[in-house]
Amino acid sequence: MKAVLIFSGGLDSTTLLYYLRQQGHEMRCLCVDYGQRHRRELAAAQAICRPLGVECRLADLTAVRPLLAGSALTDDVPVPLGPYTDDSMKLTVVPNRNMIMLSVAIGWAVSLEFDAVAYAAHVGDHAVYPDCRPEFAEAIARAAALCDRRPIELCRPFIDKSKADIVRIGARLGVPFANTWSCYQGGQVHCGKCATCLERREAFRIAGVPDPTAYARD
Amino acid sequence: MKAVLIFSGGLDSTTLLYYLRQQGHEMRCLCVDYGQRHRRELAAAQAICRPLGVECRLADLTAVRPLLAGSALTDDVPVPLGPYTDDSMKLTVVPNRNMIMLSVAIGWAVSLEFDAVAYAAHVGDHAVYPDCRPEFAEAIARAAALCDRRPIELCRPFIDKSKADIVRIGARLGVPFANTWSCYQGGQVHCGKCATCLERREAFRIAGVPDPTAYARD
Repeated sequence: MKAVLIFSGGLDSTTLLYYLRQQGHEMRCLCVDYGQRHRRELAAAQAICRPLGVECRLADLTAVRPLLAGSALTDDVPVPLGPYTDDSMKLTVVPNRNMIMLSVAIGWAVSLEFDAVAYAAHVGDHAVYPDCRPEFAEAIARAAALCDRRPIELCRPFIDKSKADIVRIGARLGVPFANTWSCYQGGQVHCGKCATCLERREAFRIAGVPDPTAYARD
Repeated sequence: MKAVLIFSGGLDSTTLLYYLRQQGHEMRCLCVDYGQRHRRELAAAQAICRPLGVECRLADLTAVRPLLAGSALTDDVPVPLGPYTDDSMKLTVVPNRNMIMLSVAIGWAVSLEFDAVAYAAHVGDHAVYPDCRPEFAEAIARAAALCDRRPIELCRPFIDKSKADIVRIGARLGVPFANTWSCYQGGQVHCGKCATCLERREAFRIAGVPDPTAYARD
């Protein structure tokens, strides 16, 4: 299989890159920038792909950001700290973010004559993100199968995995966890306090895998 | 209903704007620029919306154009002249163009708390464009209903209409046809020779409606 991977340089999508390469698939990575505050994770993405000889391209969607208001990831709203609550998660929602990312990735896959688009959706994608629900992904999978003469498959091998499961898989595959980036804040090291940092720490703890991440408040 | 209309300033989407406004719906227009060679149709779009007091926004997707190769509309391939053939139409295909446009329009509709996204798909959208098939649109409609807490409806009132039907509807509604722009070339007047110009002329002829368009070779 030849697949475009939606890639953030984070723990989940980096592990998926290693996982699909180990199965012998030809991969290209697509980073989507919808106007995040920082480029730290994009730099991490490039640094992970380069030694693997995997092409990593950027889909720059910052020009459409003004149409997609209301997200702490893209607007001048403070990043919520602490564990996710319903209210704090809603602040991090970019309207229709997944369909936009997937549609561009599918377009690139069509133009490459590739077979699939992969992404690292997992069971921890909370129900507060409506576009993380399985029935949404199934509708997109159907559209991807019909959008061109050759069907594009939507590949989500981690859909039944927890983040701790992903850490275990990554440890087995030698994923360079220290080089992956999860934090919503744009510092030099992970803040350790935002919801994604808390989830990352917890996933290593549950998996029983040493966490090589440098956190700011350690 | 409050709806975002995918709008090009062309004959079909302008008629749909008048049609939905006459039914009392609140409309906003979204022009999508995926790297066309010319801005003539974007200027036409603004000129049509302004006197109606309808907001017209641009989704600038030119930054993702390099990922979507192989189209005469976006690359350095000559625009094919004469009636569409299978080969010439394939040259004008932008991979996954409709899913990309629809996903951004749906994202804007979510952020506006609107009810629907409308577009002027009609029976003349040839089978050579796979992402114009009804079953593709049905999959997107399903995804749009699921992408957020409030469902977004996909509205295609012209899906069973021919382009000549649309001309008849537009004539009844007083659509300023002379201000709409169809031509794939970026001149001061319609070229009269490219496939969309030929279709436009033919639609007026079949509809029995005087064609106010100035064509270059007249």
